[in-house]
Amino acid sequence: MIHSSQRLLAVIVLGVLAMAGSLSLTADIPESETRSAAGQPDYTPDEKLKFPADYREWVFLTSGLDMSYNTVVMDMGGSTFDNVFVTPEAYAAFKKTGQWPQGTQLVKEARAASQKGSINRHGHFQRGEPVEVEVHVKDARFPGGWAFFIFASHEPATRVPEAAACYDCHRRNAAVDTTFVQFYPTLLPVANAFGEARGALDPK
Amino acid sequence: MIHSSQRLLAVIVLGVLAMAGSLSLTADIPESETRSAAGQPDYTPDEKLKFPADYREWVFLTSGLDMSYNTVVMDMGGSTFDNVFVTPEAYAAFKKTGQWPQGTQLVKEARAASQKGSINRHGHFQRGEPVEVEVHVKDARFPGGWAFFIFASHEPATRVPEAAACYDCHRRNAAVDTTFVQFYPTLLPVANAFGEARGALDPK
Repeated sequence: MIHSSQRLLAVIVLGVLAMAGSLSLTADIPESETRSAAGQPDYTPDEKLKFPADYREWVFLTSGLDMSYNTVVMDMGGSTFDNVFVTPEAYAAFKKTGQWPQGTQLVKEARAASQKGSINRHGHFQRGEPVEVEVHVKDARFPGGWAFFIFASHEPATRVPEAAACYDCHRRNAAVDTTFVQFYPTLLPVANAFGEARGALDPK
Repeated sequence: MIHSSQRLLAVIVLGVLAMAGSLSLTADIPESETRSAAGQPDYTPDEKLKFPADYREWVFLTSGLDMSYNTVVMDMGGSTFDNVFVTPEAYAAFKKTGQWPQGTQLVKEARAASQKGSINRHGHFQRGEPVEVEVHVKDARFPGGWAFFIFASHEPATRVPEAAACYDCHRRNAAVDTTFVQFYPTLLPVANAFGEARGALDPK
């Protein structure tokens, strides 16, 4: 009886291993989807970044309205919201360590701000499709360890050249590892707890 | 040979079923966590709603600044952002059907809007802890099928009485099933595609 149970258990274990092996070998999932599932950036062979199609299901960090580091701002004929998202994997790692792991992707999307519509009579709400999507990627393959990509469509985007002002501004002013954690209310306390937030940048 | 393979397969299948059964029977997960994992509302025995601790990891729907249906708004001494989130399960169901499933939870959190801080000189950004968290729950146990709960802390909250103005306003003005999908840019096209959005509420 014992002998028979043991043999049954062995057969089950082998069977499960065989099924697991066969599943992973025969899985018919496109490579882009398996990469996306792990939250890692997905590049074309010539190192363009593929559009992160599921970013609206990532973790939301904050939104802002018409934020600018310029005192005088030209009225371009409309207000704009920015929404910032990060991959769930990077968010979980940051909460544990106060640092961004390799492969972190932050998305900033811009959407038009409306004032009058439906029952709204005051203040601003978001409407329509994104007018721009920017991705900030932490990847040791790039100079400085981070790169920006700006998407005007869903086509793969070329890296913003490292001489662009955004890199220098992020390096000088961002609280954590070139990212503006001082504007992310759920992560700033984490960064402070780990001693990772630079200077007196806590927004007052 | 065939006979032996068939018997092996049968044993494997039975073994896998047995393992699955034993896993679900012996799983040592607290009830609150299994409920939370399924995205369902979690009540106390006296039908207060427990605070949805992980709502910042749900799917973001939109944010607004100082939105109001009143033309004249009293200046209460500060601007406020609203961020709206929904459980991933309800979001996935809505994308497939244009309707909210039972157990849908929408969270609206309010956070202070700041203008000057760090390098920001213009526009508004979010700072600090939430000043209020409201949850809107679809559950057939409540009159009208939906209920509001307002949290001033992480303690369980009592249902807002159904005579409150919020219920009537949502019933009359919200685009889909008492929810303001007209203000959720990623879901309004879905609702329109399924013919679920009421009236000329598409924000212009």
